[in-house]
Amino acid sequence: MRHLLSARDLSTEEIVALLDTGESMREVSSREVKKIPALRGRTVVNLFFEDSTRTRVSFEAAAKRLSADVLNFAAKGSSVSKGESLKDTVQTLEAIGADVIVMRHPSSGAARQLADSGWTRAHVVNAGDGTHEHPTQALLDAMTMRRFKAQRDGVGVVGTDLAGLNVVIVGDVLHSRVVRSNVWMLHSLGANVTLVAPPTLMPHGVGAWPCSVSYDLDEVLAAQPDVVMMLRIQAERMNSAYFPSAGEYASRWGLSAARFERFIAGREDEVIVMHPGPMNRGLEISSRAADSPQSRILDQVANGVSMRMAALYHVATDPAADTLDPGKDAS
Amino acid sequence: MRHLLSARDLSTEEIVALLDTGESMREVSSREVKKIPALRGRTVVNLFFEDSTRTRVSFEAAAKRLSADVLNFAAKGSSVSKGESLKDTVQTLEAIGADVIVMRHPSSGAARQLADSGWTRAHVVNAGDGTHEHPTQALLDAMTMRRFKAQRDGVGVVGTDLAGLNVVIVGDVLHSRVVRSNVWMLHSLGANVTLVAPPTLMPHGVGAWPCSVSYDLDEVLAAQPDVVMMLRIQAERMNSAYFPSAGEYASRWGLSAARFERFIAGREDEVIVMHPGPMNRGLEISSRAADSPQSRILDQVANGVSMRMAALYHVATDPAADTLDPGKDAS
Amino acid sequence: MRHLLSARDLSTEEIVALLDTGESMREVSSREVKKIPALRGRTVVNLFFEDSTRTRVSFEAAAKRLSADVLNFAAKGSSVSKGESLKDTVQTLEAIGADVIVMRHPSSGAARQLADSGWTRAHVVNAGDGTHEHPTQALLDAMTMRRFKAQRDGVGVVGTDLAGLNVVIVGDVLHSRVVRSNVWMLHSLGANVTLVAPPTLMPHGVGAWPCSVSYDLDEVLAAQPDVVMMLRIQAERMNSAYFPSAGEYASRWGLSAARFERFIAGREDEVIVMHPGPMNRGLEISSRAADSPQSRILDQVANGVSMRMAALYHVATDPAADTLDPGKDAS
Repeated sequence: MRHLLSARDLSTEEIVALLDTGESMREVSSREVKKIPALRGRTVVNLFFEDSTRTRVSFEAAAKRLSADVLNFAAKGSSVSKGESLKDTVQTLEAIGADVIVMRHPSSGAARQLADSGWTRAHVVNAGDGTHEHPTQALLDAMTMRRFKAQRDGVGVVGTDLAGLNVVIVGDVLHSRVVRSNVWMLHSLGANVTLVAPPTLMPHGVGAWPCSVSYDLDEVLAAQPDVVMMLRIQAERMNSAYFPSAGEYASRWGLSAARFERFIAGREDEVIVMHPGPMNRGLEISSRAADSPQSRILDQVANGVSMRMAALYHVATDPAADTLDPGKDAS
Repeated sequence: MRHLLSARDLSTEEIVALLDTGESMREVSSREVKKIPALRGRTVVNLFFEDSTRTRVSFEAAAKRLSADVLNFAAKGSSVSKGESLKDTVQTLEAIGADVIVMRHPSSGAARQLADSGWTRAHVVNAGDGTHEHPTQALLDAMTMRRFKAQRDGVGVVGTDLAGLNVVIVGDVLHSRVVRSNVWMLHSLGANVTLVAPPTLMPHGVGAWPCSVSYDLDEVLAAQPDVVMMLRIQAERMNSAYFPSAGEYASRWGLSAARFERFIAGREDEVIVMHPGPMNRGLEISSRAADSPQSRILDQVANGVSMRMAALYHVATDPAADTLDPGKDAS
Repeated sequence: MRHLLSARDLSTEEIVALLDTGESMREVSSREVKKIPALRGRTVVNLFFEDSTRTRVSFEAAAKRLSADVLNFAAKGSSVSKGESLKDTVQTLEAIGADVIVMRHPSSGAARQLADSGWTRAHVVNAGDGTHEHPTQALLDAMTMRRFKAQRDGVGVVGTDLAGLNVVIVGDVLHSRVVRSNVWMLHSLGANVTLVAPPTLMPHGVGAWPCSVSYDLDEVLAAQPDVVMMLRIQAERMNSAYFPSAGEYASRWGLSAARFERFIAGREDEVIVMHPGPMNRGLEISSRAADSPQSRILDQVANGVSMRMAALYHVATDPAADTLDPGKDAS
């Protein structure tokens, strides 16, 4: 795998291979000394055009556990804010020695544009592009569901998929890059996905996605899904007359204590609750749900480091890639 | 030692053990190659809710000298500023792999609250909480005094305490977290502490602390103490009618050249001057004092790295702690 | 070499020795595992009083490739902004363990002042001081020209100089620290340098520099120089009536596509184009020139890491320096 740009473009085989590597990386992380020298001498640059401390720290932890050198390059305060083009920035980073560029960018499609441009031989990992995709988030979510499903069904986790798993994703689908990546990846793995949102937070084109759509959370939960994932609400958006108020949102689309109790009733060991974080407790999720035995929210974070290790490892050690060729520069 | 939260709560034995480890770490730091692999594969997160470049860099240097991986997590620009709770932040950091969380927080008691909450199995090191405590600063001050006392008295430094040492601490006691930690730790080690401040910069509850109190620096210095520690003045506070002006402060409570000369007269080899930095030269301390042979101000900084190495080492390798258990997550 | 402060003060022998080490470092960087343990256990502090992400990241990459520990100390948000003096800041950094201080400072002469002060035994590397010097930039430019010249002339690169090479530097000479370092270093290496700028962007004292001066780029290019280096224009300066407009600048002093074609015509393999970055494409340089086979702009970046490795290595391992003496502190 030369780059990791999109969940949608990964084949089922590629996803399962990544997830299997993620399981190995989780083993590494659970040992007393948690490092392996897989990327010793390689340089990973975190190129962030938007603040995202959590994602940046997760990638940084992953790269360090693989013994890579990490350089953080925040676009703010850099020559990028002086008007340097993306092309010049990434070519500069490659010349400085970047083997992998982990990029967060406010424009949808920026990671793909970079990878397709031929501007750089460095590997590109998409750490979120506008409202488009966030593939490592989808991978860590898939890893979390796969581990749950294998444990519940008493089967081995490596090599399995999510066939038949019923997953509900609830919230601001319109502005979420996570949900786009999730829908495509979960579909590839055989899960059945239902999206739930207020009508004004559901995108127009959702009919073309491989999932069901609903505006009624209680009706969807009554059908007894296996996994409920609540998305983060940007509270500041809720001030507009176009969107529900925070109170209305919480009561109709939030995973309140009462709604959570109805969801898990009689199926305490058969269902889980997820959230990509950071949570607005009391808005889209109650503390009762977030801190319950069914919550896999912290598992998602831990799996995030494992899956980012797997992603960095896959792109950086791809035998078909020419990035590691010593004769790298054009002189 | 599971956490390091407070100077007040440490027993004399614990303090001496930490100081002795600090001496070993100082030996490490003075070798040609200054690293030891004591924390290889462990992750130290600097979680700073307030800017404090000096303290952050000192902890970062200490952790790197122990071969730990270091992640800097500034609350500014992070999900914390989006309203994420302290609980969710630290649980996220633990899930990312934090073995030790070094926390600077504007609220007094925040480190204790975190450690007592059961929210995380990571070790907590208090790097300053409001106006409450700053225990590693107290440890580095104690190390500096102990090395001075042992050298002056011609005894070995390891295992000794500060019995009988007369220490004067001068300045803005009201707003200082450092002085609270110092008073309790120096008392535990047997030193006699006198606090000197303008009346409006002395806290009301000081009568309950194990120390003497004065408002007259010249009178206190006339009693020939062994150590004078000047605290940093926040010059912006001096604009209020409630507090002395900068000029009045410097003349009555500053360690001017003349006052310093009187202090050391005839006892040049028997007394020292300290300051936690950064200094306001000409306000609370003169350059004559700061740059004198009696100054231990840069020693304090160097000892800070050694004592932070000792603190990180003690908490992270506590055999009674469960943090390093590989089966760390709840899945 | 105890410090690296100025291109002007380096002897030809010192420059050639640095360049030769840079070639070795480039070999290191091109290997599969790009690290060497030359500075293991040493601490390099990047002390930046001005933002310069590109320079900081380049030094950070260089130090990490030598296995040093790196601490980034941005003056913004630090005690420096609370009024701490440069003296106290660098003494604090030395006490924390800094072996090398890489300093970027807005005041011309700041690096020299620091090195001459006797305030610190740490080695000082000037990463840009006001409009004065930027010696590692001059070194990387010289390395780039030397590699080009050796390749073109079919001779070995190690040990050679730039005798007879005709170099043109075009742009805002008045505000450029890079050009001052370049002129002195290129002169030391035997190159012939011509500066070209609008009259109001040429400094008054330029007559004392070892170079020619012109205001007419086309005339200078007609003389068939070997190297053309375009300097970055600060577009915001171009708003003043005192300076040319952006449009006038581009047409008279920019390396437009047409002007570039005339420059290389019939000499495609014998000339190169350089720029220190970041570029304003369309202002001082056209994309036709920047992306041409003659462009060495990305080579400059890659050579920057090699030359910074060489500079850090030379200062930190100087046998005549006392910085690495274990008995470093004054206690």
